[in-house]
Amino acid sequence: MNENTLGIIAGILTSISMIPQLIKVIREKNVDEISLVMLLVLISGLSLWVWYGFMKDELPIIVSNAFAVLVNISLLICYMLYKKSS
Amino acid sequence: MNENTLGIIAGILTSISMIPQLIKVIREKNVDEISLVMLLVLISGLSLWVWYGFMKDELPIIVSNAFAVLVNISLLICYMLYKKSS
Repeated sequence: MNENTLGIIAGILTSISMIPQLIKVIREKNVDEISLVMLLVLISGLSLWVWYGFMKDELPIIVSNAFAVLVNISLLICYMLYKKSS
Repeated sequence: MNENTLGIIAGILTSISMIPQLIKVIREKNVDEISLVMLLVLISGLSLWVWYGFMKDELPIIVSNAFAVLVNISLLICYMLYKKSS
């Protein structure tokens, strides 16, 4: 299999797996299961992966980790919104 | 920064962020928050990332995704153990 195709499929699968948690948090407006520290560690790590992707010039790495950063920043926004109101 | 160093730091951060969920599931013996389908999608995606890492010969990608596969296979084992008994 072509390396890029493989990376794109891998990226789609790992991206899909993150969506349900975001939907659940948005729907239930409940962030009790989310650890702020771990979310910040994860966002830092994913951002470094995006940087790594740019250095290596690998589009699958850049796109899938940038998507993961977006999902987890959305979770962070939910955390700040829903933690206040509880 | 060196590409490999960057990849290793990125891998350590994203790996650390997965540990608390595993500890929580093992400690509470509760897998209600885990979706089996999503876990299988995630394990497939991560395994493809390991394959991608081998094709590109990039150690940070191989090691961090192989670690993630191990963590999520552990979650899968917990799922099968604790789902039965409930």
